[in-house]
Amino acid sequence: MKRRKFIKNLGIGAAAAATGLATRVAPARAQKKYNWKMVTTWPPHLPALGEGADLFAQWVSEMSNGRLNVTVYGGGELVPPLGVFDAVTQGTVEMGHSAAYYWVGKTPACQFFCAVPFGLNAQGMNAWILNGGGMKLWEEVYAPFNVKPLLGGNSGVQAGGWFNKEIKTIDDYKGLKMRIPGLGGKVVAKAGGNAVLVAGGEIFTNLDRGVIDATEWVGPYHDLKMGFYKAAKYYYWPGWHEPGTCIEITVGKKAWDSLPKDLQAIVEAAAYKSNIWMLGEFEAKNNAALQVLINKHKVSIKQFPPSVLKVLKSYAKEVIEEIVSKDPMSKKVYEAFLKFQNDVGEWAKYTEEQYQTFKYL
Amino acid sequence: MKRRKFIKNLGIGAAAAATGLATRVAPARAQKKYNWKMVTTWPPHLPALGEGADLFAQWVSEMSNGRLNVTVYGGGELVPPLGVFDAVTQGTVEMGHSAAYYWVGKTPACQFFCAVPFGLNAQGMNAWILNGGGMKLWEEVYAPFNVKPLLGGNSGVQAGGWFNKEIKTIDDYKGLKMRIPGLGGKVVAKAGGNAVLVAGGEIFTNLDRGVIDATEWVGPYHDLKMGFYKAAKYYYWPGWHEPGTCIEITVGKKAWDSLPKDLQAIVEAAAYKSNIWMLGEFEAKNNAALQVLINKHKVSIKQFPPSVLKVLKSYAKEVIEEIVSKDPMSKKVYEAFLKFQNDVGEWAKYTEEQYQTFKYL
Repeated sequence: MKRRKFIKNLGIGAAAAATGLATRVAPARAQKKYNWKMVTTWPPHLPALGEGADLFAQWVSEMSNGRLNVTVYGGGELVPPLGVFDAVTQGTVEMGHSAAYYWVGKTPACQFFCAVPFGLNAQGMNAWILNGGGMKLWEEVYAPFNVKPLLGGNSGVQAGGWFNKEIKTIDDYKGLKMRIPGLGGKVVAKAGGNAVLVAGGEIFTNLDRGVIDATEWVGPYHDLKMGFYKAAKYYYWPGWHEPGTCIEITVGKKAWDSLPKDLQAIVEAAAYKSNIWMLGEFEAKNNAALQVLINKHKVSIKQFPPSVLKVLKSYAKEVIEEIVSKDPMSKKVYEAFLKFQNDVGEWAKYTEEQYQTFKYL
Repeated sequence: MKRRKFIKNLGIGAAAAATGLATRVAPARAQKKYNWKMVTTWPPHLPALGEGADLFAQWVSEMSNGRLNVTVYGGGELVPPLGVFDAVTQGTVEMGHSAAYYWVGKTPACQFFCAVPFGLNAQGMNAWILNGGGMKLWEEVYAPFNVKPLLGGNSGVQAGGWFNKEIKTIDDYKGLKMRIPGLGGKVVAKAGGNAVLVAGGEIFTNLDRGVIDATEWVGPYHDLKMGFYKAAKYYYWPGWHEPGTCIEITVGKKAWDSLPKDLQAIVEAAAYKSNIWMLGEFEAKNNAALQVLINKHKVSIKQFPPSVLKVLKSYAKEVIEEIVSKDPMSKKVYEAFLKFQNDVGEWAKYTEEQYQTFKYL
C-alpha cells in the first residue's frame, strides 16, 4: 500500500494529522464515545420535568458533537420512579434526574437542597447553591453515596395543592390524607394530617379513588396536564411548603471521574441551562394554565388563611429543629441555609419585595 | 516506511482511525481552532460584570477543549466602552459583552431587552427572553446589524442610586444632573432632570467633581467597590428604573456562522451559565456589602417615597408610549413584553408576591 493512498483511506482526521495539523486534533481520550443512561422520577417526557431531562441530554449531545450520549428513561421504565438515587449510587446507571427530598431515608440533609417550607425561592436557591457555598455542602452530603449532584431545574414558587375540603383553620388538617413529600409532609403530619408519598404518575388515580384526600404537585401548567381538576374541588395558594423546589441531576462518581475535563464542563453547563430553562418554562406557562383551570374547568381558587400559614410556619421551624438536633450534617447544612436566607431576605426588603408592589402603584 | 511504524508516527488520532475507530473521530472542521476577541463595556475584570465575561471565556475554552479561545478586553482596551456594539457589527471583533440599552441611538427597541422602568425582574426577563418568545424578537431587532444576541447575565433588582440631595417630591428631580442610561434616563428627563450617560469607569470622577449630582450603577456589592459612598451622601432604594437588567453577549453574524454546530451550542450554554452565575453573585454578596456601606461608611439609606414612585411610573408609561408611537419595531417588541409582564404579574400574585410576605408571618 502506497503512503498517499493509505493516508486517503484513513479519512479526514488522519489526513489532518499527516499534513502537520496533528497538534490541532484533540487527544484520543477526548474522542472516546460515552453512552450513558439517565433514569428519572417523572412520567416519560412529562412537560417541563421530563422534557428538561430530554433537553439536557440533547444539549450534552450537541455540545459534545455526539461524544457523550445520554439516553433518558421515564420513571419505571428502567428502575422505579423513586429508585433513581439507588440506581446512580450502585452504578446501575450513570445519571439520575429527580428531586433531592425523595432521599430523606438515606440522608436527612438532602432536603435542604430541594424544598424548605417558608425557605428560599428559585432565585435564592440558585444563589445559595451555585454562588453561596451550598454546592460544596451538597457534594459533602452525597459523597458517601458516590453521587455528584448538579442543580438542574426549578419549579418556582409552587401552588398550594388540590383539596376536596376547605382549609379554614389549622384543625382542618386533622386526619387529612395528603400526598406531600419532604419537609412539607412532616409539617402536615405535625398539624395532624397523614402525609403520604406517591410518585407523580400515580397521584391522579389515588386522588380520584379517594385513597388520598389532597395532593400537591407543582403549579397550574403541570397540574392542568395531570388532570387533578377532575378529582379535586379546590386549588389552594401559595405553595408555602415548596417556595423554590430544586430539580437535581445526579452523576455516579465512577462515571463522572471517567469523563475527560471538557465533557465534565459540558455536563455542568448543560445543567445550568436546564435549570434556567425549566424555571422559565413554568413561569411562561403557569398563568395561561391557571386561567384555563379557573375559566374552563371552573376550579375554585382558594388562599390559605394567613392565620393558618403562621401556624404552619411555626410547625416548619419545629420540624427542622427536630431534624438538626438528631443529625449533625443536617445541622451544618441548615445553619448555612438559614444564614443565607436571612441575608437575601434582608436585601429583598429593598428590592424584590418592592418590585412585587410596583404593579399596584 | 512500514505501515505499522507509519501509523505510530501519525499520532493517536490517526492510530484510532487506522484501527477501525475512524467514525468516532470528529470531522476535521470541528477540530479547527478559533481565536476570538470579546470587547466589553466594563472596567477590566470588574467583579460580577467583567468577571462574568472572563468566566464565560474560561467556560467556552474548557468545554471546547481549547478549540474556541475568547480573549476578553476591558472597556477602552481595544475599543471605547460604548463602542462594543459597533465593533461587533463591523466585525472588528467577534464578540461583545455589554448591555442592550446603550444602543438606543441605533435601534430604540433594544431597550426592552435590557431594563424597563417598572418592568420585569430577572426571573421575568429570563422567562420572557428564553421561554416566552423574547429572543426571537431580539434577534429580529439585531439582524440588520449582523449581530446575534445572547442573554449573558442579570443584576437583579438594582439599587435606586446615589444622591447628594434628598428626593422628597417629584420636584426634587428638577435640574438634577444624573448619570442614568436607557429608559430610566428618559423618565428622569421627563421629571425635569438632566440625564447623562457616562461609562462605568468614569462615573466616580464625575460624581466626585460635581460634574453630575447623582448616579445609579448596580447594587451594594458593586457600588461599594466603585467607591461611590465617598462622593455621595444618600443611597436610595428601590431601583424602579432597572428591576432586572440584562447583560448581553453579542456575536457577529459572520463569526457565528463560521462556527460548527457543537461550538455554537457551547457558546449558547456558556451564556446561560454566565446569566445564572452573575445574578447569583449579586444576590449572594449584596447584603454583606450593604451592611458595610451602612455600618462602616455611615451611608444614609433612603426610600423613594411611594408618591414619587407613582409619578415616575406614569412618566415611564408616557416615555414608552412616545417611543412605540414612532418606531414600529419598538411597538411590536413592547406589546409582547407587556403581555408577558401582565401574565407573570398575575401568577406572581399567588406565588412570588406571597413569598415576599413569608418572612413577616
